[in-house]
Amino acid sequence: MMRILLTNDDGIRAKGLSALYEAIKEIAEVIVVAPETEQSAVGHAITLSDPLRVKELKNNDGPFGYAVNGTPADCVKIAIKAIMEMPPNLIISGINLGPNMGTDVIYSGTISAATEGTILGITSFAISLDTFKDPDFSYAASFAKKLALVVMEKGLPCGTSLNVNIPAVPEDKIRGVGITRQGKSRFVEDFDKRVDPRNHVYYWQTGKVITEDVDVGADRVAVNNNMVSITPIQCDLTDYKSLEELKREMKGL
Amino acid sequence: MMRILLTNDDGIRAKGLSALYEAIKEIAEVIVVAPETEQSAVGHAITLSDPLRVKELKNNDGPFGYAVNGTPADCVKIAIKAIMEMPPNLIISGINLGPNMGTDVIYSGTISAATEGTILGITSFAISLDTFKDPDFSYAASFAKKLALVVMEKGLPCGTSLNVNIPAVPEDKIRGVGITRQGKSRFVEDFDKRVDPRNHVYYWQTGKVITEDVDVGADRVAVNNNMVSITPIQCDLTDYKSLEELKREMKGL
Repeated sequence: MMRILLTNDDGIRAKGLSALYEAIKEIAEVIVVAPETEQSAVGHAITLSDPLRVKELKNNDGPFGYAVNGTPADCVKIAIKAIMEMPPNLIISGINLGPNMGTDVIYSGTISAATEGTILGITSFAISLDTFKDPDFSYAASFAKKLALVVMEKGLPCGTSLNVNIPAVPEDKIRGVGITRQGKSRFVEDFDKRVDPRNHVYYWQTGKVITEDVDVGADRVAVNNNMVSITPIQCDLTDYKSLEELKREMKGL
Repeated sequence: MMRILLTNDDGIRAKGLSALYEAIKEIAEVIVVAPETEQSAVGHAITLSDPLRVKELKNNDGPFGYAVNGTPADCVKIAIKAIMEMPPNLIISGINLGPNMGTDVIYSGTISAATEGTILGITSFAISLDTFKDPDFSYAASFAKKLALVVMEKGLPCGTSLNVNIPAVPEDKIRGVGITRQGKSRFVEDFDKRVDPRNHVYYWQTGKVITEDVDVGADRVAVNNNMVSITPIQCDLTDYKSLEELKREMKGL
């Protein structure tokens, strides 16, 4: 039987993880290794200077999984290197409460868990629901199950993981699946300056997302058009198109 | 006069930052905004659920800079949006104690500060010294100064920042500068399982770096050959070469 590892960045008690668990246990042996607490916007952090602890958790049906006092990337590493006896056939990270698209994917713990799985040689995808409130994870969970069967059968290109974003609309409004690129939408931050009761200044980081893309080849535009967006992602940050130009520009150094 | 923002992930008290400060203040007005504490391996994390605080620090010569209880990416954002009256002409992140090359750049707070600067439209580079012990930052600092002058004069391609790694050898052993790609060297982790005095199990994440590359076009190989490595990096994670293949594979969904 197939073994699928589930993780997330919203924490092991998150409803999106539980919806994913219910759907995936119909097709595979499931192990959950997820952060004990919410780890949103941790990016690809790993924990080197603090000890990691693993707690077994139960729900009404018995053992549910393992909670780790670390980041999503820590969870994937410790699951494979210390908790599981055999590596999983697939890793799914999610279902995230809120989208992971455009430039913001570099801040995402959800994405980093999938990237980490791929670095460790295991087929992996991340899945996110494009809403922050009143989430209905049911379509996203059934899509995750369908996609899990496809990628376990066909595999993924070496070094590639998938970043899946689901529109927050009823299933009958979904207009298909688009294979997209990471668009240029990004979080434009602002700092809300306040004074605490002891008269010390502090700041809340806030902001809003702006989108510059217009074609459905970009992740955000596809989702805004009620399409499921699937972006293949990798972790080589080299800007190949600038290599030759830089060789000329940097000659004097 | 040019304004240069300095930050790092080793914390505002780190010697690499201080060496950078001494070199850069010879060519520009310098502002330091850096994490209050060490933030290594935080990846591209940002702080949304806790308030950020900014403390002004002095050294013997007077004001030295601002310490922030956040990550390197937080420091860059808050410097530009809340601390500085005008944005800087250049951002330099470093000098990091230890290399940032290969797949490990995705875990690096040093790199994320430079990437964040580029996202905000400011020319940025990260600089790291390839050693963890007995660091001599003097050559790295003078190289940073030289590079700062070049990139302020010529600029960088839009969306591109530079990841610079300096061999930890005396200056007369340096064999030039290579424009490189992010190689495939990576941290292979291991978990050291221990029992604490209260009989609870905990783990230390350890590991070693393995290198698969052999040509000096790869960052790690260039530095092992005593060359300064400069890799142009960007933040679009899309795996473009897999897009068409995936469109075929995912047709059934």
